[in-house]
Amino acid sequence: MIYLTRRERFNAAHRLFLQEWSDEKNLEVFGKCSNPNWHGHNYELFVTVKGEINPKIGFVINLKHLSKIVRELIIEKVDHKNLNIDVPFMLGKITSAENIAISFWEELEPEINKLNCELHCIKIFETENNYIEYFGK
Amino acid sequence: MIYLTRRERFNAAHRLFLQEWSDEKNLEVFGKCSNPNWHGHNYELFVTVKGEINPKIGFVINLKHLSKIVRELIIEKVDHKNLNIDVPFMLGKITSAENIAISFWEELEPEINKLNCELHCIKIFETENNYIEYFGK
Amino acid sequence: MIYLTRRERFNAAHRLFLQEWSDEKNLEVFGKCSNPNWHGHNYELFVTVKGEINPKIGFVINLKHLSKIVRELIIEKVDHKNLNIDVPFMLGKITSAENIAISFWEELEPEINKLNCELHCIKIFETENNYIEYFGK
Amino acid sequence: MIYLTRRERFNAAHRLFLQEWSDEKNLEVFGKCSNPNWHGHNYELFVTVKGEINPKIGFVINLKHLSKIVRELIIEKVDHKNLNIDVPFMLGKITSAENIAISFWEELEPEINKLNCELHCIKIFETENNYIEYFGK
Amino acid sequence: MIYLTRRERFNAAHRLFLQEWSDEKNLEVFGKCSNPNWHGHNYELFVTVKGEINPKIGFVINLKHLSKIVRELIIEKVDHKNLNIDVPFMLGKITSAENIAISFWEELEPEINKLNCELHCIKIFETENNYIEYFGK
Amino acid sequence: MIYLTRRERFNAAHRLFLQEWSDEKNLEVFGKCSNPNWHGHNYELFVTVKGEINPKIGFVINLKHLSKIVRELIIEKVDHKNLNIDVPFMLGKITSAENIAISFWEELEPEINKLNCELHCIKIFETENNYIEYFGK
Repeated sequence: MIYLTRRERFNAAHRLFLQEWSDEKNLEVFGKCSNPNWHGHNYELFVTVKGEINPKIGFVINLKHLSKIVRELIIEKVDHKNLNIDVPFMLGKITSAENIAISFWEELEPEINKLNCELHCIKIFETENNYIEYFGK
Repeated sequence: MIYLTRRERFNAAHRLFLQEWSDEKNLEVFGKCSNPNWHGHNYELFVTVKGEINPKIGFVINLKHLSKIVRELIIEKVDHKNLNIDVPFMLGKITSAENIAISFWEELEPEINKLNCELHCIKIFETENNYIEYFGK
Repeated sequence: MIYLTRRERFNAAHRLFLQEWSDEKNLEVFGKCSNPNWHGHNYELFVTVKGEINPKIGFVINLKHLSKIVRELIIEKVDHKNLNIDVPFMLGKITSAENIAISFWEELEPEINKLNCELHCIKIFETENNYIEYFGK
Repeated sequence: MIYLTRRERFNAAHRLFLQEWSDEKNLEVFGKCSNPNWHGHNYELFVTVKGEINPKIGFVINLKHLSKIVRELIIEKVDHKNLNIDVPFMLGKITSAENIAISFWEELEPEINKLNCELHCIKIFETENNYIEYFGK
Repeated sequence: MIYLTRRERFNAAHRLFLQEWSDEKNLEVFGKCSNPNWHGHNYELFVTVKGEINPKIGFVINLKHLSKIVRELIIEKVDHKNLNIDVPFMLGKITSAENIAISFWEELEPEINKLNCELHCIKIFETENNYIEYFGK
Repeated sequence: MIYLTRRERFNAAHRLFLQEWSDEKNLEVFGKCSNPNWHGHNYELFVTVKGEINPKIGFVINLKHLSKIVRELIIEKVDHKNLNIDVPFMLGKITSAENIAISFWEELEPEINKLNCELHCIKIFETENNYIEYFGK
């Protein structure tokens, strides 16, 4: 079993808040991440898959294929976008890094499992000091 | 003459556009940076000052003082904010990295020149692949 | 289950040695890390916790709370300090990265387990080429 | 149980191809990695071992010993070399990062297991966007 | 005057040697960089241009245009290539980082000077420990 | 004219203080950097030289020679040492990054100027957020 990881990046705006709460209540719970006029990040996304090597060609999968899937299903939908407004699969969700990771897993898993591998981990850096990992359960 | 550099970071939303232009025209000129619902970045800011060493204490200036000035005059005003809406000294300007650098210079120079040094360079990374430097002229 | 990681940094002096050994014996076992007049590092600390998402707010825990705990219990006690002399919870221990990781685990676990999560991993970089991970057992 | 990781680096040329295939077929499967005149990388290698702390000296093993083993068994054989031609233990293998990781594991495991620890993971970065991990099974 | 920098990357094989010298003589002068079967690098290229801001749009130039020029004139010709054999503008030259920097300058300057800016610096990292800068004279 | 830069690293302890001042006065001026029991850093040193290319071999100088000089004259004397006590050329000086940079310049310049180049810049990172540059005047 080999684990392969591909890094992709995207730049997006977002805001953490509950619509049913006042700005004051949102500020109390989410801090400056609830600024009503949005803020943003250079997100770094690490997608890890695992599988057996195809002995003929020495690959589990071609990382270019993995990159292509991640770009089509995720990056094109979130890069230079507002995660709360512009991204169909995030609508109605709090755009915490936790929820982003789970949503990306749900988008990627069906396509990745058609390849010779399994999705293993979604890792997201929101800043150089904070990251989230999700392993699908 | 010694050059000292302090790195600070901020996370902000912005959009590149001219109000007088249509979304199509803005898209043509500014590309995906003109997305109407904003996007954002983890900006990295490097402030470089230059001066003579105070021979008694071996410092040009205490970098903590420089950091304090940069945080008060810049970081507190831009971190977790929308650069187009929330930042008084950016109002009415296109929030390109070029203009951000010049505006930061204008905010910082008067305060930094009260110290035993001169502002030398404002350097801003918008992504790991792009940065801007401004030397005040 | 989601894993969250927070990075913190501290700058400290230390020395690897056994008081009962001669300088020569210490040099033989610990190499230049046993220099009698100390040396030091910019340590990087990664604290990983795991837990379930609070579905209401989309968080496992607020990473600001985690950061606050790590700063109060660890960083304030080790930053700009001598790990062999100044840090109560390291006294009498060899200040290897292994022992630092275990000691940090012991300091952090009781407080972190009061939150909606469990301590999962302490990871410490001593240099860009060396790091240690401890998972509590 | 403590996990220790040592980073080493090497610069090497390689090419992905099957001798039995035409250049066209190799290009179709391996893309530009099959360029007949080679290309190359600054590879980063992370070797992770695990073991119990020796309570007397606070170490699992001295990371200098681990570094020495990795340099003698791996780095001296691959650094500034052609992985397809110059490296005895890669001969006849496709020089994918997957196969490099498995081959390094096979070279290192017998020597590392003579120390007070077990080989846990071989991690190889081929570029800043791609890495492979192998855990020995 | 504003300075803009764009980072691009390429992976290439090369060898330092003089055809008229024996392998022994080449080894003496160029060290392991003269290995007859090539070695390679993940090169990082930083292209810096300088110019006045277009006040209407807040840009000196669109960094996407700069990136496009660098990719077309440089990256497509050197990425996943052998710098000694595959790159027309390097033929007959020693492929030192110095010569690479000068050659890239000569390829880029005419195209960049058609934009609203001037080429200022070519910076090339061969490894994380070595880089070269060339300012055109 | 080409500029070449070599990165080297060292880990050292130090303390900022004036012997003639009380601990309180030192704390007031130097902050936590004056902790009486020392602290330390992973210093990063960038040495930049400039010169003309030797057209025969495509080098200004062999960066291995530069690295050898820097290691012999600087790194061996400061690595895993106490900068205030163990380093002859720092004795009696405040071990600020400013003074370290100037002292390194004085140690390196005579030897580097015997090569086919001139010393151009000493750059020292004390932490990831602070660095000093000195150009010899």
